[in-house]
Amino acid sequence: MEERIREVLETVLSKVKPTEEEEKRIISVVERIRDLLRGLDVEVHGSFRKGTWLRGDTDVDLFVFFPKEVGKEFLSKEGLDTIKERLKGLEVKMAYAEHPYLIVSLDGIEVDVVPALRVGEGSEAVTAVDRTPFHTMYVTSKLDERGRDQVRLLKRFLKGVGVYGAEIKVLGFSGYVSELLTIYYGSFLEVLKGASKWRPPVKIPLVEEGRQFESPLIIPDPVDPKRNAAAAVSLRSMAIFSLAAREFLVNPSLDFFFPPEPDVGPVLGDVLVTEVEVLEPFVDDVLWGQMRKSLDKAIRALETVGFKVVDYGACEGNGKVYLLIQMESAHIGEYTVYKGPPFYLETSRDFISKNFHVWVGEDGRLYSLKRRHESSPETLVGNSLALKYKHMVRQYWLKEVKDPCMKLFLRKRPLWLK
Amino acid sequence: MEERIREVLETVLSKVKPTEEEEKRIISVVERIRDLLRGLDVEVHGSFRKGTWLRGDTDVDLFVFFPKEVGKEFLSKEGLDTIKERLKGLEVKMAYAEHPYLIVSLDGIEVDVVPALRVGEGSEAVTAVDRTPFHTMYVTSKLDERGRDQVRLLKRFLKGVGVYGAEIKVLGFSGYVSELLTIYYGSFLEVLKGASKWRPPVKIPLVEEGRQFESPLIIPDPVDPKRNAAAAVSLRSMAIFSLAAREFLVNPSLDFFFPPEPDVGPVLGDVLVTEVEVLEPFVDDVLWGQMRKSLDKAIRALETVGFKVVDYGACEGNGKVYLLIQMESAHIGEYTVYKGPPFYLETSRDFISKNFHVWVGEDGRLYSLKRRHESSPETLVGNSLALKYKHMVRQYWLKEVKDPCMKLFLRKRPLWLK
Repeated sequence: MEERIREVLETVLSKVKPTEEEEKRIISVVERIRDLLRGLDVEVHGSFRKGTWLRGDTDVDLFVFFPKEVGKEFLSKEGLDTIKERLKGLEVKMAYAEHPYLIVSLDGIEVDVVPALRVGEGSEAVTAVDRTPFHTMYVTSKLDERGRDQVRLLKRFLKGVGVYGAEIKVLGFSGYVSELLTIYYGSFLEVLKGASKWRPPVKIPLVEEGRQFESPLIIPDPVDPKRNAAAAVSLRSMAIFSLAAREFLVNPSLDFFFPPEPDVGPVLGDVLVTEVEVLEPFVDDVLWGQMRKSLDKAIRALETVGFKVVDYGACEGNGKVYLLIQMESAHIGEYTVYKGPPFYLETSRDFISKNFHVWVGEDGRLYSLKRRHESSPETLVGNSLALKYKHMVRQYWLKEVKDPCMKLFLRKRPLWLK
Repeated sequence: MEERIREVLETVLSKVKPTEEEEKRIISVVERIRDLLRGLDVEVHGSFRKGTWLRGDTDVDLFVFFPKEVGKEFLSKEGLDTIKERLKGLEVKMAYAEHPYLIVSLDGIEVDVVPALRVGEGSEAVTAVDRTPFHTMYVTSKLDERGRDQVRLLKRFLKGVGVYGAEIKVLGFSGYVSELLTIYYGSFLEVLKGASKWRPPVKIPLVEEGRQFESPLIIPDPVDPKRNAAAAVSLRSMAIFSLAAREFLVNPSLDFFFPPEPDVGPVLGDVLVTEVEVLEPFVDDVLWGQMRKSLDKAIRALETVGFKVVDYGACEGNGKVYLLIQMESAHIGEYTVYKGPPFYLETSRDFISKNFHVWVGEDGRLYSLKRRHESSPETLVGNSLALKYKHMVRQYWLKEVKDPCMKLFLRKRPLWLK
């Protein structure tokens, strides 16, 4: 088994470890942009700087620091303008996270150029990005060449099983969390062994926690212990990772890292698709936050009315977001039966006067039949949508896969399970 | 109110009290048959003898007694043959209860001629009919002319609300039980007042009970206290009577005694009809016993699979028995979702290996989807039928009333409720 695992990991590493040529190309691009920003307080960060990026999937962050005193408002205005001015002539796009930043495309490589405030230590961070230099420092001080490869294996594994990324769309493990887990456990395999035994709440005490956390996975940030670096990890992502880890240790295979294309079987039960097309620019995390809330509201509404929801999820493809709600049946009937009191109780008078359809069951209790307020799943889900962006909606019952992104949801079995 | 009730009861009585002419006609028919049976030990029994029969609805029983010593086998053979021989030339049909008996039709009146054993007292009865002479004696000794009319009101009320008759088809109140209730409470109105306060188990202690009874309504038989005269009364029949009594005392009307024809509304939910046509002679109580068992089995099967049964029942019309099963929806889907253990429990390994469709929910638990063994209500009900008589079955989903007998079931509200 150990032998088989070693083989798999070597194969994975040979695919995810960047080539020297790739590294050189990135360095040259970074240098050209640095040149343009000469005189400003510039630092390279991100997975490229930490040496934990995956081949073909570089995250290069060029941070431009301004004194803490200018305040965070300055960053999105004068700060950003200063940088834009310097980068004139390059292919530059605006992007939005907590604050706006720039994405520069050069020689086939994308570099994020991010204005930030210079603070004395991680816990003084005003915006999330101000903490980044301290993360970089911490990680590079803890990981050697071998350790960096272990992070690469872990990231690829998390991607493969679908739980990589802290964004609301995924609610999974960020790059930084992957690095911290590797530092704590020592190697990729030790991370898996640890995770396979997780029972929430799980604490990874690289440093003592600076306050109490409520999340299923708790990793106090070594550079700011009042913050849980793993706050975004949902119970579901944690469960998937733990189960996949347990399975990999018994049945190792490349499928965990590079899942095959899902096969498409018949649609099981009735799957209602609510196709949302957003008609104006949006911030990913804001949109997905609204999608998640809408979906939760829709599920509550459906279950309250009496539908048996099997599973639900969302995926993105073809410029659209698909909300997928799978139920045992789309048809639960227009009427629902209510069990009333036994005939001999005083309350039975009340039950009779309040219901038109009322009769006596074999058990001597009163029963009634009431029309459901709403029994159309389309309407229930439509009314639950709470999107602030201008958008268009189409709804239909799935007969066949409309977009490849639906395949995994419909499969109802992880690809890494044989 | 008292005034209104008196009016209603007078009207009812004027309709149910037999005319002198009817009585004379019955007497003359009975005398003609007695003549033919001269020399045998013959007695008149039934509601006619007790003076509690309803106009146009006479139950005349001519009992032919044989000495106890001949044994009950004798009754169905030599006993019956002896009687048949005497009645030659009349229109005679065989009928079956606990033992065979004869129905003679003469001058538009039917008389049951029943062979029985002569016993010393009620508790010595070998077959149910041997007890009859003691019932007749008890009832006639306790009821005067006014009391007999009170019984007539009660019987008509029980018929009107659909719970008259001890046969398995009805599981309601027999004529004898109606008489005992009237004797105990003293009048029709006092029976209603008493019944409106019933909370099972209810005991009517005309005599002390000869053993412990389990039924909802317990009336130790005054002529055989080891027997519960009301054993056939189901909880449902008792509940209907009690509720109707309560309602009548507040809103008296003729509808309780002579219900109007049910109006026909739309079919609510999905109603599966299983139409049974029996192809050989049958004993009513035997057939209905089998129908009830089949129906109970069908309901259990449907509910186990996941159907929401609203109500069920059976009715007879057009030479067929219709089993009616009303459910919220006929479509519950071919697959059903199962909730498995949380990911961190040891049992999750088992759940994964035993299920093909398995995934992780937002709550960190495993879920699976299984195909139902059977999701067709037609098949589930069809497989539950346990009829010993040769029969034919048709099944369909009700779109409109196929037989008047279905109307009340479909109405889902008693006709006596305004």
